[in-house]
Amino acid sequence: MIIKVLGSAAGGGFPQWNCNCRNCAAVRAGVPGFRARTQSSLAVSRDGVNWALLNASPDLRQQINDTPQLHADPKLGLRHSPIKAAVLTNGDVDHIIGLINLREAQPFSIYASDRVLATLHANSVFQVLADGLVPRIEIALDKPFELEGAGVDLGLTVEAFAVPGKVALYLEDASSADFGSQEGDTIGLKITDPVEKKSFFYIPGCATVDEKLGARLKGASIVFFDGTLFTDDEMLEQGLLNKTGARMGHTSMSGASGSIAAFSKLGVGRLIYVHINNSNPVLDENSPARKSVEGAGWEVGYDGMEVRL
Amino acid sequence: MIIKVLGSAAGGGFPQWNCNCRNCAAVRAGVPGFRARTQSSLAVSRDGVNWALLNASPDLRQQINDTPQLHADPKLGLRHSPIKAAVLTNGDVDHIIGLINLREAQPFSIYASDRVLATLHANSVFQVLADGLVPRIEIALDKPFELEGAGVDLGLTVEAFAVPGKVALYLEDASSADFGSQEGDTIGLKITDPVEKKSFFYIPGCATVDEKLGARLKGASIVFFDGTLFTDDEMLEQGLLNKTGARMGHTSMSGASGSIAAFSKLGVGRLIYVHINNSNPVLDENSPARKSVEGAGWEVGYDGMEVRL
Repeated sequence: MIIKVLGSAAGGGFPQWNCNCRNCAAVRAGVPGFRARTQSSLAVSRDGVNWALLNASPDLRQQINDTPQLHADPKLGLRHSPIKAAVLTNGDVDHIIGLINLREAQPFSIYASDRVLATLHANSVFQVLADGLVPRIEIALDKPFELEGAGVDLGLTVEAFAVPGKVALYLEDASSADFGSQEGDTIGLKITDPVEKKSFFYIPGCATVDEKLGARLKGASIVFFDGTLFTDDEMLEQGLLNKTGARMGHTSMSGASGSIAAFSKLGVGRLIYVHINNSNPVLDENSPARKSVEGAGWEVGYDGMEVRL
Repeated sequence: MIIKVLGSAAGGGFPQWNCNCRNCAAVRAGVPGFRARTQSSLAVSRDGVNWALLNASPDLRQQINDTPQLHADPKLGLRHSPIKAAVLTNGDVDHIIGLINLREAQPFSIYASDRVLATLHANSVFQVLADGLVPRIEIALDKPFELEGAGVDLGLTVEAFAVPGKVALYLEDASSADFGSQEGDTIGLKITDPVEKKSFFYIPGCATVDEKLGARLKGASIVFFDGTLFTDDEMLEQGLLNKTGARMGHTSMSGASGSIAAFSKLGVGRLIYVHINNSNPVLDENSPARKSVEGAGWEVGYDGMEVRL
């Protein structure tokens, strides 16, 4: 399998359009050690020819332009794309709006939970993807399925599972417990090449690594994991937003209940942070936070990162 | 006034993600004479400090990053943007989806017709723009209004007027006359600096330059105009799409009823094409089409183009 990190930032990207936090100001000024990042998405392929997107970020058009493997191939007709499927892990705009870029009568398959499909259905802008050409396929949790799209079998199996999380911000219901979040609002994915018997996990949003999730991930080859925040209160501390990571449905890297501690005994081969918020000090390659993360065996994902297994 | 062309391409951009037409293949291959273009949007400012967007394209995050005038100013606080308003000319996804990039609790004003506001209201993804911070202001046709947002008077007057056009593709009603199009689905804008007494027109979508529109534009200083197609049937002729420009609500540049002919006697100071489709031969700077357009006194807009008046 080939895995490309198309976008390694959380919603808003890095820099974020309206932000002058330490990190955003630095990357905009070209300070060494800071790297611009587009919003959260991976692409995966078994054969390097046909690809599936894991989430579709608002930056998808730029991400396709920046990734030669995803370019239309002139040998394959006037209209073509290597992108045959998109699998969505939640309904956040940073994970679904990129679908709008995949219009122009090109066939591919959308896979999402019933909750996320209901959001696509309720928003008429997604009708730019013609029904007959772009089937929307409901993902059942904990039931592996074969990925296909545009008549192509991608040779990959996907298993989706619920992870601790929260409904998308714009769908929050303040009158309901946990803002109206339900199972299926946030899922993780296990992608498997059944021939090579190799797998990786993709979990860009996760509120906590509980016992059940820990058991599932134990001994995995590779996990791409929610790297939104370094500390739970960093956005409050920096004066950026009046919310903790816990309130936003994102665990933090550091701390007793953070992801570094949670993964320390799981024996995962490669641990890679994605979905990194602009407030996160690990975005400064020279920061103590970055050194502590790398010292704990984690990699900080970046746009264009290619992983093979 | 300062006018920046943020994006000069029609929906899909140039190259378009799934297209191998002559132009898209050439620009992707880096052939000289072809220039990549993002999707349709302008920005305008009276003072060079506070700006209004005219349409908000899906490429807006990239456009902001590429335009230093639109960067957050670190002298003006942790969260800031020079963008104080966005004026929308129709409900096409290439003109409205960029609004999603303007989230993160930043105040600005959205101006649109009742028809386009109804589309925003009907699509929950736009709830990422908080009601209290981002007012949605209905534009009345033919009634000039002063542009303001985030408590800032932009010092510009806008007059909106109906132009011949069509409802957005994803909102078409096949059972209704003209696909359910109504007045207000497509508007043109006249932007005026009342102190300097200078104006320009922005009309990125227009089905035909009829007598009424011609009378309005006669003697204008600058018109940015719909440059989607060079010939009405070029997408059919190139095998790209089974639709004429007339069917899509876009007049063509050439021909007896095209924009070059229609403007030839209107005495406009500067004529600039924007919203240029990937199929349009004028995208090749060395093409006969390009030479004929320039020979007729038109400029072909490009991303980053700056116009002052």
